[in-house]
Amino acid sequence: MPEPDAAVLERRAEIVAAMRAIVPGEGVIDHVDSLRPYECDALTAYRQIPLVVVLPDTVEQVAAVLRWCHANHVKVVPRGAGTSLSGGALPLADCVLLAMARFNRILDIDYADRVAVVQPGVTNLGITRAVEDAGFYYAPDPSSQIACTIGGNVAENSGGVHCLKYGLTTNNVLGVELVTIEGDIVRLGGRTLEPAGLDLLGVIVGSEGLLGVVTEVTVRILPRPETARALLIGFATVEGAGQCVADVIAAGIIPAGMEMMDKPAVHAAEAFVQVGYPLDVDALLIVELDGPATECSHLLEEVESIARANGAVSVRASVDEQERVAFWAGRKAAFPAAGRISPDYLCMDGTIPRRRLPDVLTRMRAFSAQYDLGVINVFHAGDGNLHPLILYDANEPGQLERAEAFGADILRLCVEVGGVLTGEHGVGVEKRDLMPAMFSETDLAYQERLKSAFDPGLLLNAGKMFPLLHRCAELGRMHVHGGAVPFPDLPRF
Amino acid sequence: MPEPDAAVLERRAEIVAAMRAIVPGEGVIDHVDSLRPYECDALTAYRQIPLVVVLPDTVEQVAAVLRWCHANHVKVVPRGAGTSLSGGALPLADCVLLAMARFNRILDIDYADRVAVVQPGVTNLGITRAVEDAGFYYAPDPSSQIACTIGGNVAENSGGVHCLKYGLTTNNVLGVELVTIEGDIVRLGGRTLEPAGLDLLGVIVGSEGLLGVVTEVTVRILPRPETARALLIGFATVEGAGQCVADVIAAGIIPAGMEMMDKPAVHAAEAFVQVGYPLDVDALLIVELDGPATECSHLLEEVESIARANGAVSVRASVDEQERVAFWAGRKAAFPAAGRISPDYLCMDGTIPRRRLPDVLTRMRAFSAQYDLGVINVFHAGDGNLHPLILYDANEPGQLERAEAFGADILRLCVEVGGVLTGEHGVGVEKRDLMPAMFSETDLAYQERLKSAFDPGLLLNAGKMFPLLHRCAELGRMHVHGGAVPFPDLPRF
Repeated sequence: MPEPDAAVLERRAEIVAAMRAIVPGEGVIDHVDSLRPYECDALTAYRQIPLVVVLPDTVEQVAAVLRWCHANHVKVVPRGAGTSLSGGALPLADCVLLAMARFNRILDIDYADRVAVVQPGVTNLGITRAVEDAGFYYAPDPSSQIACTIGGNVAENSGGVHCLKYGLTTNNVLGVELVTIEGDIVRLGGRTLEPAGLDLLGVIVGSEGLLGVVTEVTVRILPRPETARALLIGFATVEGAGQCVADVIAAGIIPAGMEMMDKPAVHAAEAFVQVGYPLDVDALLIVELDGPATECSHLLEEVESIARANGAVSVRASVDEQERVAFWAGRKAAFPAAGRISPDYLCMDGTIPRRRLPDVLTRMRAFSAQYDLGVINVFHAGDGNLHPLILYDANEPGQLERAEAFGADILRLCVEVGGVLTGEHGVGVEKRDLMPAMFSETDLAYQERLKSAFDPGLLLNAGKMFPLLHRCAELGRMHVHGGAVPFPDLPRF
Repeated sequence: MPEPDAAVLERRAEIVAAMRAIVPGEGVIDHVDSLRPYECDALTAYRQIPLVVVLPDTVEQVAAVLRWCHANHVKVVPRGAGTSLSGGALPLADCVLLAMARFNRILDIDYADRVAVVQPGVTNLGITRAVEDAGFYYAPDPSSQIACTIGGNVAENSGGVHCLKYGLTTNNVLGVELVTIEGDIVRLGGRTLEPAGLDLLGVIVGSEGLLGVVTEVTVRILPRPETARALLIGFATVEGAGQCVADVIAAGIIPAGMEMMDKPAVHAAEAFVQVGYPLDVDALLIVELDGPATECSHLLEEVESIARANGAVSVRASVDEQERVAFWAGRKAAFPAAGRISPDYLCMDGTIPRRRLPDVLTRMRAFSAQYDLGVINVFHAGDGNLHPLILYDANEPGQLERAEAFGADILRLCVEVGGVLTGEHGVGVEKRDLMPAMFSETDLAYQERLKSAFDPGLLLNAGKMFPLLHRCAELGRMHVHGGAVPFPDLPRF
């Protein structure tokens, strides 16, 4: 990187001093070595050291930081645990990175109203841990739930394997406190589901840090179901597994989770965690049923008979809680398992109508041959949310670029068959320039109007979600990697 | 009413001519006798004849009408079936009333994806009628479902007795086509639940016609449950019924519906429809369980035992579909039943945390004595959504004003105990000036920013939802009635 000039250094010093005036002590980080841990999120192909990291302790500090940045035209990137798979928390070279790690307290738990009020830095699993002794849990369960925070879940509208029955984050968040770039503190929603007036809560969930910084979250907690049992169902063909998923839903059964893994995913997961997945199948379904014991057994039998009718070659039901957890362990470890068999991988995230599944998998195999890159497929099959993991080696010239082109083709295919660009990982930087494949100019213009209504200076998480060049017919695509400065097209001060 | 002056007449003629140039034939109504049917919605205490009614046939006509009104600073009030209970479709003297009655076609039904695509003027029940032969239905079921249209349901985020389990309109709408005041046609959502980018769909649902006019709606349809059975449970005290509701939910049971009626409501309904409600109880619960037959019987027994533990004095389960429908008929007829025992009534709509129910009912009885007006209570008890019907006689001087003050006290009480101003009827004009009881200046300012982003001239359904005077500490309340011109505070041309 070239040495910044004097004006840039002076501006940097001014920003850091302003931050120190608001957040005392070790809450402001500006030494390059200490900034390094913040240079990327889980979309590790993109890296950028921020100008400064600020770790506020109080809502007032958050408001003061944002107000100052707004008044002084400084970009702000909010950050939770940095587990975003779409680059949602990727810093900019000229940004204040607002890290919410110190907002890690559970503020209130009310079992009668079934709500928990927590700060945004509490982890997803931390909520369940806080209420599980009373027999409750928080339903959305992204694979990263040990690490990811509820603030990030709100920003990305995170899902998980149980969202088929229990909904995404947006269906489980009842209210938030939001600080806007102008330093206003807005309360949206509350302890009841239906707000009066315009439903701003719904638009904040999934807004990827573009509209404000969430400083408090009220979530719905659910009583742990009386029973939960999982089925492992092996199929000789992906088509059979896909039809089984369609038939289960068509029978009026909403499983707690219904996941599919293709053969390479099954092998990678089994090699990693040894949970006893069948290796001689082309597709594996994990179907979880929950509820009262009698209902559970009844549904288990129904699903098994639907599976057999679709040519299932093996069916195994969990006999106890330990085995149920083991069945899921392989699925939840699919991403690290991919990391063991390939130096790098790109995790994609798109949603398609369920019935297009076999068709989309066939096309994906053709892409795999075309780009000469392996692909492992895990999906939330029940809601048609695909997570293809494209395997590549960043040290082999051209492979990242091929992987990205492969990924873009997959997402365009999702849109083509009537799906959407993202299921639960957000748009971020990863899918930003694909937005015009999904939205018309007019559609995007109205999203941008909303953005501007909340953040007229376009300072909050600038460069994410909205395609930078979407007024051009031909989109320029960017290829950046390991240490390179991304976003050459973003203005710098 | 005073005779309008020449300038007003000229402007009126100009607007009518512009409308006729866009919508030919009988699609433009401007004769006062023909305008009369449009002067109010179901909040009949407020009446106003619009300047002109326009009934477009095509999306292009809707866009042209809106674009012309935007360019010429003319207010627009969108209207579905006119069944709003909050005055959401109440005309303004200087508005184009955009009636969507001709948009009454079902465009597509897809049982595999479980969606129906319909025009906004299709009735709520019309959707179910179109899919019931295939074993499907549309879940939200407002009492007005025979008449009310899906466009109005989207505008008001309508509920119904089955929303406890199946959600409000917002949980059952997957996509809309929206025409903005500038004539832009925006598509939001689609056939899949999770949109990419900012979730504008969620904010359109429940936006009460302030952000745009919906011209197409994609809804989720559900398979009719295998079995549905209803329980009629009588209690000697409201407290017992309230505790029963809390205990059912606490037991992890989500009934398809769980409604409470107090003694006056039971008597009024029984006198009207004779369905065999017990008359010697202080509170009646109707609890519906649905699902597979075995699950249904199991849950029925559980609910009955919870009811007995809370002092239920009578429990009766429906034995066939005819009886189940009869159990509901009384509840669904509660509003017209109130109309039989009182010349007029105000139907209120607020939501409270379930556990505050007995407390709120006690306070409501005190208000009833204080204002010397009767009140009948029906509620969606499972989700804490109250519908007190305040009985009054509009021909007795002062009674409407007392009824309105009584209603405002109820809604303030809802907010005071941690609830919200509206459950499912919207803010409209009815609750507009109570918004500051619920929202801070800052909260409202951000809702207004969103409004301005979509409708910078504030022309769409002007005078609804947002308090006109919310910058004043003391709100002036308005009392208008039968034929009086409401909104003296709204600017006229």
